[in-house]
Amino acid sequence: MPALIEISDPVDPRIDMYREIRERDLVGRKGLFVAEGKVVVEKLTDSAHHHPLSLLIASKRVEALQPIIARLASDVPVYVAAQPVIDAIAGFSMHRGILAIGRRTTVMAADDLLAACEDRAMVLVLSGIANHDNLGGIFRNAAAFGADAVLLDGDCCDPLYRKAIRVSVGATLLVPFARIVRQENMIDLLERHAFSPVALSPTGADLLSDWRPGPRTAVLLGAEGPGLSAKIIGRTRSVRIAMSGGFDSLNVATTSGIVLHHIASVPPK
Amino acid sequence: MPALIEISDPVDPRIDMYREIRERDLVGRKGLFVAEGKVVVEKLTDSAHHHPLSLLIASKRVEALQPIIARLASDVPVYVAAQPVIDAIAGFSMHRGILAIGRRTTVMAADDLLAACEDRAMVLVLSGIANHDNLGGIFRNAAAFGADAVLLDGDCCDPLYRKAIRVSVGATLLVPFARIVRQENMIDLLERHAFSPVALSPTGADLLSDWRPGPRTAVLLGAEGPGLSAKIIGRTRSVRIAMSGGFDSLNVATTSGIVLHHIASVPPK
Repeated sequence: MPALIEISDPVDPRIDMYREIRERDLVGRKGLFVAEGKVVVEKLTDSAHHHPLSLLIASKRVEALQPIIARLASDVPVYVAAQPVIDAIAGFSMHRGILAIGRRTTVMAADDLLAACEDRAMVLVLSGIANHDNLGGIFRNAAAFGADAVLLDGDCCDPLYRKAIRVSVGATLLVPFARIVRQENMIDLLERHAFSPVALSPTGADLLSDWRPGPRTAVLLGAEGPGLSAKIIGRTRSVRIAMSGGFDSLNVATTSGIVLHHIASVPPK
Repeated sequence: MPALIEISDPVDPRIDMYREIRERDLVGRKGLFVAEGKVVVEKLTDSAHHHPLSLLIASKRVEALQPIIARLASDVPVYVAAQPVIDAIAGFSMHRGILAIGRRTTVMAADDLLAACEDRAMVLVLSGIANHDNLGGIFRNAAAFGADAVLLDGDCCDPLYRKAIRVSVGATLLVPFARIVRQENMIDLLERHAFSPVALSPTGADLLSDWRPGPRTAVLLGAEGPGLSAKIIGRTRSVRIAMSGGFDSLNVATTSGIVLHHIASVPPK
């Protein structure tokens, strides 16, 4: 278990990575990211794909957070500061009282991630999801319904951005994900690994409720508004969610939840 | 069609109600609220339960918004201002370029709203949903799947708060809603109108996918975390959504989408 390191000066260089975290994004800097809040930091300490570099905890919360601290390797520094010092470091009122810097340790290519899936598997493939709330919401559903992986095209935002991690309740630290490189055709990639793609679209040919997943299924989701490109939809089975007339508008994270619940509830083909 | 009224001075008293809208909430002030963005203002002009008191539009958007303006009664003032003047009035960058002040015209008691439902009907009953994103998301799903009404207990936030309207994509202006008064027992109220209550709970007795709705169904949803009170669950059928082990955490708006899709997809009892 690591020793606790008292921080009393907000400009102490040891906690530089925690400074003004609202204003910037550590991602891209050597695969580093910020995790905030008890539940999310717990997920970080449990994760097979990431590990904590350090923690910053409000003094008054040290006792309550002892189980998390006890789980850490002894070389992970745990900085402890009074609440006003933490607020001054972070640049806003960090009422959650616990932050961690994490590092991504497993980076897999999309091909390798799909190849590593079981014979029965289900992955999500996201195109142009540039909103952190939606991306976080989709990962949360992916974890809740046991998706095996999430693939992201080049127009999706980063699952390790602070807000995406928070909204996902830490799911972006648990569900394996990979980027699809820009030169790669998404459908070719999926077919190479025997994943049957199904595209969600308001103009989908079949009703979601009539569709049954195959042994290896890839669920394709595009951004609200533009949706998936006609080129992608033209090469896949497409399904729609039956909606009431006059207001056919669903949030993409909600859509992912509906599809994942359907897959979890119906017998496979 | 109303005439356009040019506003060049951000402190012009005629547009007082649009001032600093981010910082305050008009709701409670005679049932007034702020609608923002083209889609939401369209819903306001279509709504049977609310009507627009005035609009404020960026000069550069007047032409594109002509169809909305043309639909208005001639006594609804349409204020037009240059973008910098609008930004100064609203107190932030109003890139959507269209705002409206609306007034709620139909306020029904929960009893009357339930009594007015058809013999086959489905309503949502919300307990302690205090987050505007979640409340807006639930209303969006209620509209998408044709719920007949939404009932809210005293611990829910206001569906006519600006952010709730925006997140709902205007659905809070379309789906009829009513407050349950604090003295009223929610279950007694529903039973009085022959609505069968079903409570969503992670510890629900049955799987959602095995449950079939009756002719008049009321879906009960509580806040993430606390959930519904044991007192409520004890008096209702309770169902759970099957989830993957280790991460049994769903957002309440996503939950509402999953339940509503299930109801829309299965044959009723």
